Amino acid sequence: MAVEKRRLADLASHDAFVHRHNGPDQDDVLRMLETLDVDSVEALIGKTLPAGIRLDRELDLDHPKGEAEALDYLRRLARQNKVFKTYIGQGYYGTHTPAVIARNVLENPGWYTAYTPYQPEISQGRLEGLLNFQQMVMDLTGLDLANASLLDEATAAAEAMALCRRANKKAKSERFFVADDVLPQTVDVLRTRADYFGIELVIDSAERVTDHETFGALFQYPGETGRVHDLATLIEATHRQGAMACVAADLMSLALLKEPGALGADVVVGNSQRFGVPMGYGGPHAAFFATSDKHKRSIPGRIIGVSKDSRGQLALRMAMQTREQHIRREKATSNICTAQALLANMAGFYAVYHGAEGLRTIATRIHRLTTILAEGLKRKGLQLAHDSWFDTLTLVGADAGKIHGRALTHEINLRMHRDGRIGISLDETTTAADLAVLFDVLLDEEHDLSVSALDDEIVAAGTTGIPEGYARESDFLTHPTFKRYRSETEMLRYLKRLENRDLSLTHAMIPLGSCTMKLNATSEMIPITWPEFAHMHPFAPAEQAVGYKQMIDELSAFLVEITGYDHISMQPNSGAQGEYAGLLAIRRYQAAQGQGHRDICLIPSSAHGTNPASAAMAQMKVVVVECDKDGNIDLADLRHKAEQHSDALSAIMITYPSTHGVFEEAVRETCEIVHEHGGQVYIDGANMNAQVGICRPGDFGGDVSHLNLHKTFCIPHGGGGPGMGPIGVKAHLAPFVSNHVVTPIAGVREACGAVAAAAFGSASILPISWAYIKMMGARGLREATELAILNANYIARRLEQHYPVLYKGLNGTVAHECIIDIRPLKQASGISEEDIAKRLMDYGFHAPTMSFPVPGTLMIEPTESESRYEIDRFCDAMIAIREEIERIESGEWPADDNPLVNAPHTMADLMDERWARPYSRKLGAFPSEHVQTAKYWPAVNRVDNVQGDRQLICSCPSIEAYRD
Amino acid sequence: MAVEKRRLADLASHDAFVHRHNGPDQDDVLRMLETLDVDSVEALIGKTLPAGIRLDRELDLDHPKGEAEALDYLRRLARQNKVFKTYIGQGYYGTHTPAVIARNVLENPGWYTAYTPYQPEISQGRLEGLLNFQQMVMDLTGLDLANASLLDEATAAAEAMALCRRANKKAKSERFFVADDVLPQTVDVLRTRADYFGIELVIDSAERVTDHETFGALFQYPGETGRVHDLATLIEATHRQGAMACVAADLMSLALLKEPGALGADVVVGNSQRFGVPMGYGGPHAAFFATSDKHKRSIPGRIIGVSKDSRGQLALRMAMQTREQHIRREKATSNICTAQALLANMAGFYAVYHGAEGLRTIATRIHRLTTILAEGLKRKGLQLAHDSWFDTLTLVGADAGKIHGRALTHEINLRMHRDGRIGISLDETTTAADLAVLFDVLLDEEHDLSVSALDDEIVAAGTTGIPEGYARESDFLTHPTFKRYRSETEMLRYLKRLENRDLSLTHAMIPLGSCTMKLNATSEMIPITWPEFAHMHPFAPAEQAVGYKQMIDELSAFLVEITGYDHISMQPNSGAQGEYAGLLAIRRYQAAQGQGHRDICLIPSSAHGTNPASAAMAQMKVVVVECDKDGNIDLADLRHKAEQHSDALSAIMITYPSTHGVFEEAVRETCEIVHEHGGQVYIDGANMNAQVGICRPGDFGGDVSHLNLHKTFCIPHGGGGPGMGPIGVKAHLAPFVSNHVVTPIAGVREACGAVAAAAFGSASILPISWAYIKMMGARGLREATELAILNANYIARRLEQHYPVLYKGLNGTVAHECIIDIRPLKQASGISEEDIAKRLMDYGFHAPTMSFPVPGTLMIEPTESESRYEIDRFCDAMIAIREEIERIESGEWPADDNPLVNAPHTMADLMDERWARPYSRKLGAFPSEHVQTAKYWPAVNRVDNVQGDRQLICSCPSIEAYRD
Repeated sequence: MAVEKRRLADLASHDAFVHRHNGPDQDDVLRMLETLDVDSVEALIGKTLPAGIRLDRELDLDHPKGEAEALDYLRRLARQNKVFKTYIGQGYYGTHTPAVIARNVLENPGWYTAYTPYQPEISQGRLEGLLNFQQMVMDLTGLDLANASLLDEATAAAEAMALCRRANKKAKSERFFVADDVLPQTVDVLRTRADYFGIELVIDSAERVTDHETFGALFQYPGETGRVHDLATLIEATHRQGAMACVAADLMSLALLKEPGALGADVVVGNSQRFGVPMGYGGPHAAFFATSDKHKRSIPGRIIGVSKDSRGQLALRMAMQTREQHIRREKATSNICTAQALLANMAGFYAVYHGAEGLRTIATRIHRLTTILAEGLKRKGLQLAHDSWFDTLTLVGADAGKIHGRALTHEINLRMHRDGRIGISLDETTTAADLAVLFDVLLDEEHDLSVSALDDEIVAAGTTGIPEGYARESDFLTHPTFKRYRSETEMLRYLKRLENRDLSLTHAMIPLGSCTMKLNATSEMIPITWPEFAHMHPFAPAEQAVGYKQMIDELSAFLVEITGYDHISMQPNSGAQGEYAGLLAIRRYQAAQGQGHRDICLIPSSAHGTNPASAAMAQMKVVVVECDKDGNIDLADLRHKAEQHSDALSAIMITYPSTHGVFEEAVRETCEIVHEHGGQVYIDGANMNAQVGICRPGDFGGDVSHLNLHKTFCIPHGGGGPGMGPIGVKAHLAPFVSNHVVTPIAGVREACGAVAAAAFGSASILPISWAYIKMMGARGLREATELAILNANYIARRLEQHYPVLYKGLNGTVAHECIIDIRPLKQASGISEEDIAKRLMDYGFHAPTMSFPVPGTLMIEPTESESRYEIDRFCDAMIAIREEIERIESGEWPADDNPLVNAPHTMADLMDERWARPYSRKLGAFPSEHVQTAKYWPAVNRVDNVQGDRQLICSCPSIEAYRD
Repeated sequence: MAVEKRRLADLASHDAFVHRHNGPDQDDVLRMLETLDVDSVEALIGKTLPAGIRLDRELDLDHPKGEAEALDYLRRLARQNKVFKTYIGQGYYGTHTPAVIARNVLENPGWYTAYTPYQPEISQGRLEGLLNFQQMVMDLTGLDLANASLLDEATAAAEAMALCRRANKKAKSERFFVADDVLPQTVDVLRTRADYFGIELVIDSAERVTDHETFGALFQYPGETGRVHDLATLIEATHRQGAMACVAADLMSLALLKEPGALGADVVVGNSQRFGVPMGYGGPHAAFFATSDKHKRSIPGRIIGVSKDSRGQLALRMAMQTREQHIRREKATSNICTAQALLANMAGFYAVYHGAEGLRTIATRIHRLTTILAEGLKRKGLQLAHDSWFDTLTLVGADAGKIHGRALTHEINLRMHRDGRIGISLDETTTAADLAVLFDVLLDEEHDLSVSALDDEIVAAGTTGIPEGYARESDFLTHPTFKRYRSETEMLRYLKRLENRDLSLTHAMIPLGSCTMKLNATSEMIPITWPEFAHMHPFAPAEQAVGYKQMIDELSAFLVEITGYDHISMQPNSGAQGEYAGLLAIRRYQAAQGQGHRDICLIPSSAHGTNPASAAMAQMKVVVVECDKDGNIDLADLRHKAEQHSDALSAIMITYPSTHGVFEEAVRETCEIVHEHGGQVYIDGANMNAQVGICRPGDFGGDVSHLNLHKTFCIPHGGGGPGMGPIGVKAHLAPFVSNHVVTPIAGVREACGAVAAAAFGSASILPISWAYIKMMGARGLREATELAILNANYIARRLEQHYPVLYKGLNGTVAHECIIDIRPLKQASGISEEDIAKRLMDYGFHAPTMSFPVPGTLMIEPTESESRYEIDRFCDAMIAIREEIERIESGEWPADDNPLVNAPHTMADLMDERWARPYSRKLGAFPSEHVQTAKYWPAVNRVDNVQGDRQLICSCPSIEAYRD
């Protein structure tokens, strides 16, 4: 062997993360280029990307760090965070995540890499988890119906306001009442939303609800300063006025307090964070939304329902979806896409693990500790703002300065109101020992208070902070699922059983067009569960969150460089939220320029539904721009419409590369036309994965973009959320992004309301994107983009002889995804894109995106993380399916009895002795060599959508129902 | 609702871990007692445990901590450890565990809760992992054959010595040569082992091997001070003398160094720790053992082989097993049972993930850094002990005191030899920046050394530390498995695919008698991967391991209280090692009393095979004591034999409760008889799970016991290791337990040699047992024992109408396990215990222990962690199987074609169109309602043991072989 000639730096680069992130190796690349008849990746990109927008340099990012090195660095940042014992409350509470849930759900790629359960046959596990979540919310709130989570309590409240306006058609008023003890961050978001809905918010004390004519009202239960309202009276009064009553409720308190549904509430919203989901400096957590049966068709977000499969067995599905194509475009009053599935599952499992008895005990302990604190303080002459409480006390007239000082010495955070009142919220993690320290902090001198003596007295006297008539009397969590999994062993098996029913990235490629199901690397995921990131309260003093700040600042700087914008706003906690925030920035900027009347938003006909929905929410009028026969924006039509609306033109929203998977040549010209007419350019970041390192929206004309960190920047999909949708803006828009009432953001105008409950959205998952960028470096990121494009072109080339590829660019290439057209096939054989999607399950794959953006098509995005091995396996499956379709076309198999219409095939099919199909069991369930050794089994047969829609059942079915 | 009357303490106890650890809840207990017709658990224990030995008080342990609280406490302990940058080497090295392996193997219950793969049909995943490990060892060492891991390098070396003596029948000498630069801890263990084998160790410089007549020789490659020996010459010389040549090799170095197998080595051993397994203050890691084909029948430990299943498909199995019943009892020269499966799998996966190219690069980088260091130091006039090296340099004549001081200032550990030499070993984690710091530490004054300039010069000059002729020329890791999984996505899917082939505790109860497959709680597992525990070098200065020391001291104190002994020795890293260490303590003690001639060890006929094997290794003569018809020790025979051997009686080894699953009434008397005759009492701790909190071996006559922390104290089985087997001893034996040459143990006589490579065995997994005891508390531990006994009796009662229960105690109860007799059934139907075991797989269960301790039986141990739900599911399956057997007995099904002899049923069976069996596919593969919704699929059909034994193949099969 010759002596090794590589230098040290080259020897070290072996560890480069880029080789782990990207699927194809050197050899794969060469062979794919060969198939494409292209000399180099460079040449492929040259053919694909318009020369005029190509970035002519490498991104300016630091030398990439290895995985261990990046984690070391991040660990040092994490240690700069100081996690104090925190009693701030205000919607966020300490909680114990049961370890079995933390390890086997939150830290398990089997759960976190799954996609949104649009394909129910391969998603029964997380659908059951979400159904548990719905059942838990319904039970605790006392309402008929709950959805499968929303982004946060504040946006859930905004959705409640919107529902009231939709549902309460009789009300003449355009005013919405908000009690003055609703959480301030909720009011902030409500205000933003109301502004652009033309709704006037009326904020007053809860008791004065009848002083105002409104279409709806929102109460906090318990109120932000701790009071337990006389909700029955308030709701009755609201109803008497002809308004609807919404309640933002604390889920934990409902284990002890009378449920708002029983008191007449029309809508109950809130956060499920304290059910085992760490605070994470603001998120992600699952908010909930519950309402009564009569509003079931207008409930926002996703809802899981019970249906049947083709064998008549119970099967779960999303009964109401909110995917792009389901959004009611410009008629929408909500643009919600992402939910918080992973976190909703965690909260639901927390309830499953504790059961009613456990929750009641936890809530009782919290309440008892609060009562002990209240009694102790009163005994020492301190004055409380209210004489009722669940977990929160507010002190009035105390020496706030002194107490604050003592608290900091003890590494304790209290809620210091600006007016000198002091708030203290206890939670599941508070112990008797903590209470003793709290007495020391809150009381001026030596005291003789004993927690246990106070406890004795309280038990003897029956003291409680819950007002007469407000103690809960009804049962909850009575379904067997909430009773069976009490030991860790049983719980573990339940979680694993559900995990194994779902297809995730741990099994196979999930080739979803526009959804970018790339690798979610373990090293990216590790930091999010470190205590220093996980247990930070969003309203903790800034000096305790120094590590967070630096991480967020660094990530922002990376994203500025990657996008070519000047500033990043990290608040929006979903892509749709980002769109909304971006459009608001445009509108506010234009208003500040005296151009507030501009309200026309041009949107190409190829756009996904969220765009017009977001525009509608920003009170804009949508004007559709047509596409030409190649699927590109029709420039003539664009010119015409821009001209026509020149005075009122506010913005255009385009996606780049387009939703058709093509880098449109005229993108720069498109932007220029809009700018010429005084409009701003919103470039949707959904397809940013095809741009990173090779072009930048900020360079070719964009004024603002949102970035789906959960697509391009590796935050996992979590089975349907979380997401993060920060926006990049040019400097002129920077002062107009979202601010935050509790934690104001420097450089942003005060009047700019929030779009999310926390200043930095779902801050705790930002280390994922930080680590991705830090470990990839400039060259790595560019290579990833190039490989994503190479992989997509390779698929297009391999499939085009079997399925027509619908759209291509000027030189016959596609961008990072491709659309194949199933319509001709359907015409000829009766086989639909859905049949192909279901048949792919038999081959062990998740279907590509169905019928979006074009009905009757499949859109395939491989991402850079898939190897040629896996891509070939997918193409082989698609080609084999095409051959199966030929046998239907030829009449060999009847149109109504063949492996496609019968797909997916399940174990139930195989164990059925009455197999009388024109093909073998083996062909049905084991059509490829791969599945014969590594079979993933769809849990149910094809799910009946009609049945599920007709009869909406979204509570856990009884065991008997399963037996039927 | 009435005001809650529970006091705070009772409200907090809801979180008690005991309710999560134990399977049965209150209601389950009542219903099981009803079935047993017993009034209370108390009464059941009263019937089961002899009154005379019952502990009349609760154990004296602290109030139990909740999970979060225990983790907080342990985290504080962990922070007392100081993890310095460590260059000590000496067999232990820094390594980067690839995150995808850490999370998805080491931190994944799907891997760590699996049992040893005795049932190959449901273990193909980890069998493949272990085959990878074997292949990797074979490739790197250049030998024909490797086993599936041993406990540590030192014991592997001892096994090599034993093999030489067995295999080298021609050699007349009883002497074994050990080169004087073999690792000191290896020499320590070799010395212990040799002493009791009657072998004389000759320690001399490697070159003088020919000066001594020996049956074998051991060389370290590279030597402990870094020199790369001229191995070819040494081996040739050894062989010329008629001795066999063993090499203890560094696995990483073999990526660059000529492989010992090619140089003629007969045996190569070593540690695979630096292949991605953290040092963990000494363990656990997987040692390896490779030899040539001619020694294949005498290779120690387990070996995985390739065979076929009943369909002719390739299937893996343990070709050589080392379970109790496979050990050659008193003829044994090794008592090895446990391996290090989990760690071997990790090391194998590390090789899979890096491949040959990656390993070569890592090794080259380590070597280059070492060469840079060597060149730099030489340039500055420092003197090196050798002019060859791979990763280790030894400085001579430097100012050790000064350098040591500077090193500590920089938080660096060097190896400070007692004679003033300084050792520096680099590893995968060393960077160029680290080297710059090392120069600062090692050089007295300001210097101008530049790592990158030195690198340039070295590349230009072709400088290397590898001697002429010793650079590796051959390929390794050429099998496709080591080439395919280079991206994290591919690796993740590979790991998950293998995981899903295995049945583990995540799927179902594993009712293995004597193996105690209880819950391995997540909270217990979390701390072992904290860096402060994971990255501690075993020979780091004591003042850096303060947290470890306190944790170990606390755990020792717990175990002292639980067992009634006076002292714990934490060194043995397996149960069998514990037995050996315990017997050595007895022999040393007796020798110190002038009773060294005592060498008779009484062992009941019911004992498991490890007992006589351990006795043989301690140079004792085994005398078997008979059992009576009820399976109990025959007291008359015991008295007779004790008397007969009174002068030479050294000890008795008994298991309690007995391996028959019964609390023998006469245990105290048994101990007394032995004591009367001057013998010591060894009580095997295998069944300690039935004693904790209700009786103590130290109270009823034991002098010494080992404790299987991997059974009773929750360390997971890891698919076949790790284990930990500390021993408890009475005060008189305490000075005679194992000491350690590198880190001497206070209170132990210096002459007492080590039994394991590290002073505290596999220290990094001790937090598991610590956490278990801390979270359970005295009452919790007692309740666990009681429930284990209740569960076992419930099973015995439910099954006894269908299968005879072989042994019971005086009052008709069993202890924590029960044996059912299959022999009558076999006689009547031809169905064997193996058929039942395989059929259980179709019902989703792992088989109970087969044919141990009685051939033709099944031994069932449910443990306390299984709920009544799961136990009933198991009993229902057993009863359903009994009914199936009736259909064979009645002639309904032929004896050679029925669901039992055809079991397990696989997907291959179901997809076979030629199904012509007398029962349906559904009955075959889905015999219960449970498996119809949550099917676990055996990966292969019944494995052919004869084929596998006849033709031993233990390398990875080619893809073609799979296709055949």
